[in-house]
Amino acid sequence: MRVVSGMRPTGNLHLGHYIGVLRNWLELQEKYDTFFFVADWHALSTKYDEGLDLKELSIELVKEWIACGIDPEKSTIFVQSDIKEHAELYLVLNMITPVSWLERNPTYKDAMAQVEYKDKNNAGFLTYPVLQTADIILYDANLVPIGEDQKPHLEIAREIVRRFHYLFKKEDVFVEPKELLTEMPRLPGLDGRKMSKSFNNAIYLDETSEDIWAKVRQAKTDPARIKKTDPGHPEVCIVFEYHKAFSSAEEVKEIENACRAGSIGCVECKKRCAANIENIVAPIREKKASLNDDEILDIIKTGERKAKELASKKMEEVNKLIF
Amino acid sequence: MRVVSGMRPTGNLHLGHYIGVLRNWLELQEKYDTFFFVADWHALSTKYDEGLDLKELSIELVKEWIACGIDPEKSTIFVQSDIKEHAELYLVLNMITPVSWLERNPTYKDAMAQVEYKDKNNAGFLTYPVLQTADIILYDANLVPIGEDQKPHLEIAREIVRRFHYLFKKEDVFVEPKELLTEMPRLPGLDGRKMSKSFNNAIYLDETSEDIWAKVRQAKTDPARIKKTDPGHPEVCIVFEYHKAFSSAEEVKEIENACRAGSIGCVECKKRCAANIENIVAPIREKKASLNDDEILDIIKTGERKAKELASKKMEEVNKLIF
Ligand code: SF4
Ligand code: SF4
Repeated sequence: MRVVSGMRPTGNLHLGHYIGVLRNWLELQEKYDTFFFVADWHALSTKYDEGLDLKELSIELVKEWIACGIDPEKSTIFVQSDIKEHAELYLVLNMITPVSWLERNPTYKDAMAQVEYKDKNNAGFLTYPVLQTADIILYDANLVPIGEDQKPHLEIAREIVRRFHYLFKKEDVFVEPKELLTEMPRLPGLDGRKMSKSFNNAIYLDETSEDIWAKVRQAKTDPARIKKTDPGHPEVCIVFEYHKAFSSAEEVKEIENACRAGSIGCVECKKRCAANIENIVAPIREKKASLNDDEILDIIKTGERKAKELASKKMEEVNKLIF
Repeated sequence: MRVVSGMRPTGNLHLGHYIGVLRNWLELQEKYDTFFFVADWHALSTKYDEGLDLKELSIELVKEWIACGIDPEKSTIFVQSDIKEHAELYLVLNMITPVSWLERNPTYKDAMAQVEYKDKNNAGFLTYPVLQTADIILYDANLVPIGEDQKPHLEIAREIVRRFHYLFKKEDVFVEPKELLTEMPRLPGLDGRKMSKSFNNAIYLDETSEDIWAKVRQAKTDPARIKKTDPGHPEVCIVFEYHKAFSSAEEVKEIENACRAGSIGCVECKKRCAANIENIVAPIREKKASLNDDEILDIIKTGERKAKELASKKMEEVNKLIF
């Protein structure tokens, strides 16, 4: 069974990416034939005007994957734009994808309702589910790890596959990808807002232990706790969210009880939280520091060769059929 | 100065293509560095459901170009889908092309108002001006021969070029293509309707002399002429349209006068018309019969090498800038 998944190279990874995506990828690579790619063309679709150095960000991203434990012996790692077949298949699939399917896509509708995206209503943005479809069906992905909100995209992918088979009168050119519905816990930023670089409320995977503490120390807690002995409400506390994500089940239970009983101070609670985060971040940070760009470029080259072989074979089959 | 122009491989060429496009291409190749390509991806955008053998049609199309006098020594002849950079640049340009520019395109709006296109409102159809833009700016085309109705497409192409330069903060990556406004006389079908294979009202460039006569003989003439001596009205006669396209200026004048005076019969008039058409078609038909597929494939391969060199250099420059 093959699993294909991508990530946009739009900046350093933080704990949200770790528990939302990477922890899951680490499990997947033990069980499946995993293909992980840097979605640099996708990054262009909304970030084209930010002057990002996507080349550098792509190397950085793969470096962080490797630092987290993604293993090039187990997973095929490549950069989307190195495999021109993604663009070629995207073009072909656009020819048979009704605009109405794309306009109905809830993510698209949501984005268009937001002021920051209004002027980004570009053809690439409208058609990004088609590019996503190409990304996965090019490699016969059986499973695609997604969260609940991405279900409509995978539904479009399956509909495109069926329509292709129907129009070109041949079954089984592509595999209909199934979703591997993954709980993607959304970690809030330390101030309770959405995690974002611009809010400075995220802990990065290469954060120093001092900075981890500095950030956790300022996290929002239960505002009802003034004195240490005030009974707390963990369910409204951001630090508790982080405990749930990074501390052991026993420790989470213990903290919860102690907080409600007013027997633990927020500072101590934060210290324990920071220590558990440090336990996860430290090896990633150290591994990342030990990797150099040339190693990463080698890994990408190796993945490119493997991905290219499959992709070009698939496009040969497609082109024989459509031309 | 470079001129780039393409044609869809959707079936045999007829006299309408000859006077509308090819006669113009023949002139252009004497004056400019001409690139002529088979637009096979474009053909998919509306013909994907017709089961056309686009590979065969592409060879056939180039064969007819050569038969008409397009000279591979003077023009670069290639097949669009052989040059994957068209797809790659199309993807990149989609990322920066507002959907509203495409929705405003009059050709798109017209098509969507027609029942036969309603269910073809695919992403590829909406974005075909973007693919057209890629087709021409990939080769630094200075001039694009178009008819009046295609002006909005070239305007979109120029706007995309400007937007690209603006967003990626570099001028002169692409050349802003200018239109070479060409009178593209629209030859009606012999029955007065639009020329179309399904109406059997077109004369093909490889039509036999017998079939030319059989078709011209049935052409619609001035219905007011019952007897040979009835004064005619050439302006309402299809045969006269054909004289204007294929007979010498003197002969046209002579026919006009004779028709109005009632001194020429329609049969004689048609015979002369058929003879003049035969004069144009005969050498094309014979040249076409003398060409074999291997020669054509060689020509396409040679053109591909030249186009590929320019296209890949251009994409290297683009990718350096955007990534
Ligand atoms: S003790 Fe811990 S869980 Fe309770 S409010 Fe303070 S920081 Fe939050
Ligand atoms: S004489 Fe010629 S131009 Fe006049 S009506 Fe007959 S066919 Fe037409």
